[in-house]
Amino acid sequence: MKRYMLEVAYDGTNYCGWQVQPGKATIEGELNKALSDLLKQEIEVIGASRTDSGVHGLGNVAVFDAETRIPGEKLKYALNQRLPEDIRVQTSREVASDFHPRHCDSKKTYEYRILCREVELPTERLYAHFTYRKLNLERMQRAATYVVGEHDFKSFCSAGSQVKETVRTVYSLTVEQEEDLIKIRITGSGFLYNMVRIIAGTLMEVGVGAIEPDEMREIIAGCDRGLAGPTAPARGLRLVKIEYIHNVIKIHKKM
Amino acid sequence: MKRYMLEVAYDGTNYCGWQVQPGKATIEGELNKALSDLLKQEIEVIGASRTDSGVHGLGNVAVFDAETRIPGEKLKYALNQRLPEDIRVQTSREVASDFHPRHCDSKKTYEYRILCREVELPTERLYAHFTYRKLNLERMQRAATYVVGEHDFKSFCSAGSQVKETVRTVYSLTVEQEEDLIKIRITGSGFLYNMVRIIAGTLMEVGVGAIEPDEMREIIAGCDRGLAGPTAPARGLRLVKIEYIHNVIKIHKKM
Repeated sequence: MKRYMLEVAYDGTNYCGWQVQPGKATIEGELNKALSDLLKQEIEVIGASRTDSGVHGLGNVAVFDAETRIPGEKLKYALNQRLPEDIRVQTSREVASDFHPRHCDSKKTYEYRILCREVELPTERLYAHFTYRKLNLERMQRAATYVVGEHDFKSFCSAGSQVKETVRTVYSLTVEQEEDLIKIRITGSGFLYNMVRIIAGTLMEVGVGAIEPDEMREIIAGCDRGLAGPTAPARGLRLVKIEYIHNVIKIHKKM
Repeated sequence: MKRYMLEVAYDGTNYCGWQVQPGKATIEGELNKALSDLLKQEIEVIGASRTDSGVHGLGNVAVFDAETRIPGEKLKYALNQRLPEDIRVQTSREVASDFHPRHCDSKKTYEYRILCREVELPTERLYAHFTYRKLNLERMQRAATYVVGEHDFKSFCSAGSQVKETVRTVYSLTVEQEEDLIKIRITGSGFLYNMVRIIAGTLMEVGVGAIEPDEMREIIAGCDRGLAGPTAPARGLRLVKIEYIHNVIKIHKKM
């Protein structure tokens, strides 16, 4: 048995998220189906990030164990022929057999896209959150500075989460504008349930003037979900990439 | 009766193009339905550009005549509530009663988007033509220079067209790259049937090396569709804007 890693891009619009759910179309489910069909054995992938329904992926990571003579780098071509057109494996390769996409240290980068204009643009409607409200970029950028660093992010964790440890490290958080598209980009050691969408929702409240930029500090310190802004809609969010630290993906040397 | 003009944006993916066809979903058909419903009278719009199935619009233009007390600028809000989410009226206003979107002089701008990477990106699949072939930008830019100006563009007109006069003026044609996305942007006095898609298809052949940049001159001079490259797929094309010259849209002064 060898372990293989896939970097997977998908349009989350028509899926009930990443994680397998009986009777529902999910990214993980489609990968399992395509892999099992290709390799003629029951395959269940382990995913790095269980993105929600409607959230997009550019580089989510999945691993699986299999017996196959197909070279790791070629797997993606055979897989993409079996996957629906809204899921595409970007890279495939063999990895160390103890590599685990959730338990190994990593840096994840998400992007939240907000389209700010008077009227919605149909070609962006599935890949950005639309608002006709004017957002002040400079205010959002100021508020963003408080988020960077190691903090207890309990205020930015949806009530449904069962995670006990809510301290995370945000390495960077930028807010940039290209014409009428605002892009919030965040890189961190890991994220709580809905954390990026709640940060985006809170930054939007700062942008419209409902929350002062400096209040971000108290919202974080308060450790209370009620203090932060609303959870921004799923369609604006995309998982951009996951980078593993310490070269944990090194392939075992052949003896 | 007053004449009103709409600037219309749409995602062409789920439509059989702009023009009304019995039993098929079209942009024009949806506009007629929403307008007739809103204004309680039979409305048929006149469109500026009859974009093909799968082609997108950011600012196509339509006019119609109607009796209504709704101010021109407010029409868009009422219309957008009645339109499907993949069609959105960007602006609406009253115009001169003799303004005709096809017969009045205009500059049209189209953009053709090509995604060049090893594997398709699902979130771009409906809005760009994907190719894994390497395109040389500099070659494409050189070929593009021959297209600018007044020429007989018969080589870039699909066989199905019944147009007799095939001379058109291209004001500008740029080829730019942003990461793995190549954008061909063309502005002209008007375009023959499939002209932009055939120019894009020919530039791609130049980009991969199958046609030399300087051959573009002979392809134009030959006035033979067989000389040019293939018609690039519809999904990569978007009508960006239509600008009318000589202020023909001036509203009649109230007496």
